[in-house]
Amino acid sequence: MADEVVLLDTWASAFGMRVRIALAEKGINYEYKEENLSNKSPLLLQMNPVHKKIPVLIHNGKPICESSIILQYIDEVWKNKAPLIPSDPYHRAQARFWVDYIDKEVYVTWRKMWLSKGEELEAGKKELISIFKLLEEELGDKTFYGGDTFGFVDVNLIPFYSWFYTFETFGNFKMEIECPKLIAWAKKCMQRESVSKSLPDEKNVYEYIVALQKAQ
Amino acid sequence: MADEVVLLDTWASAFGMRVRIALAEKGINYEYKEENLSNKSPLLLQMNPVHKKIPVLIHNGKPICESSIILQYIDEVWKNKAPLIPSDPYHRAQARFWVDYIDKEVYVTWRKMWLSKGEELEAGKKELISIFKLLEEELGDKTFYGGDTFGFVDVNLIPFYSWFYTFETFGNFKMEIECPKLIAWAKKCMQRESVSKSLPDEKNVYEYIVALQKAQ
Repeated sequence: MADEVVLLDTWASAFGMRVRIALAEKGINYEYKEENLSNKSPLLLQMNPVHKKIPVLIHNGKPICESSIILQYIDEVWKNKAPLIPSDPYHRAQARFWVDYIDKEVYVTWRKMWLSKGEELEAGKKELISIFKLLEEELGDKTFYGGDTFGFVDVNLIPFYSWFYTFETFGNFKMEIECPKLIAWAKKCMQRESVSKSLPDEKNVYEYIVALQKAQ
Repeated sequence: MADEVVLLDTWASAFGMRVRIALAEKGINYEYKEENLSNKSPLLLQMNPVHKKIPVLIHNGKPICESSIILQYIDEVWKNKAPLIPSDPYHRAQARFWVDYIDKEVYVTWRKMWLSKGEELEAGKKELISIFKLLEEELGDKTFYGGDTFGFVDVNLIPFYSWFYTFETFGNFKMEIECPKLIAWAKKCMQRESVSKSLPDEKNVYEYIVALQKAQ
């Protein structure tokens, strides 16, 4: 039986992009279903009744939720091509640590910054920059987070590259100046078709966020 | 070479208890180092410079941080005894989903409830009860979360049993009345030496929290 793979997603979601990249790396065919987050489909509510959030991967009718969990699932099921998670337990734990750090810090800090003004905005911006500086430090002189091959941490972090323009415009700073090595890493990731085809145009993300803000 | 295993922990931490239970399940000898969270040791700051939090497992000199990541590490390194994480990818993803849910919801909601009064306390209490009700529903009629054997979700959730008395006393409710099946599951878990020896007395946890509150 051929695998039936469906992805419930929203084009601008960095979390959804993670799944798109992983599926592309593995060469998996799937049906993409765009969700309207202000009017969620009955299928999304049925498949992720706890969080009611995208992305959801539906594999042969069974849902898997939470992007970093979906990535581990994809890597475990389709293990013969493009392994994402290191095989050594210590390296696995380190990769999971940094993905957990990204999950806890990046989007939450951006939300705080986005929804604030004045001093609070300034504090949020500094915090966001310090998060990316720490991530840049962890990258060090390596090509990718796991070393020479594109892997778990890369897939989880690179989607935010399409949000950098939005972060910069709201915060009035330049990632190129703050974190030049991270930008060099991002450009290297973008040379992969799995990444470049999964990330939307940065200006479109910015316009989407501006429109969202106006609608609030 | 014999494994050198050190655990940086604090007796009342539900997250530390998770690691103690997993190490006991696997029969691993280790050195336990109690941390004073109001005066953290140089070793803790060196081993977990990002979060500066316990628990940290130090295995042959290398640190692993974040309790649910430590548990996966323990299960992957000492894989021949008492497997915790299911072998099937879908069941693994489901177990990770519920552990992630516990991580995101239980302690955060308790903190909100603890630090509030009046209506806010009442709302926090209702939220906490609804979280446990959902976890009870997920357990259903199974003996343990993974079925017949004690596993990943059980290890991650059971430490909060030693905090139930604190939750109940601050919120003025009874878990036995709200979630009787969850209490029955907890009592079954407590029959395991790995659990009963890793959890502190519930009254001691309560006194610790009361003292912490007074010190604030």
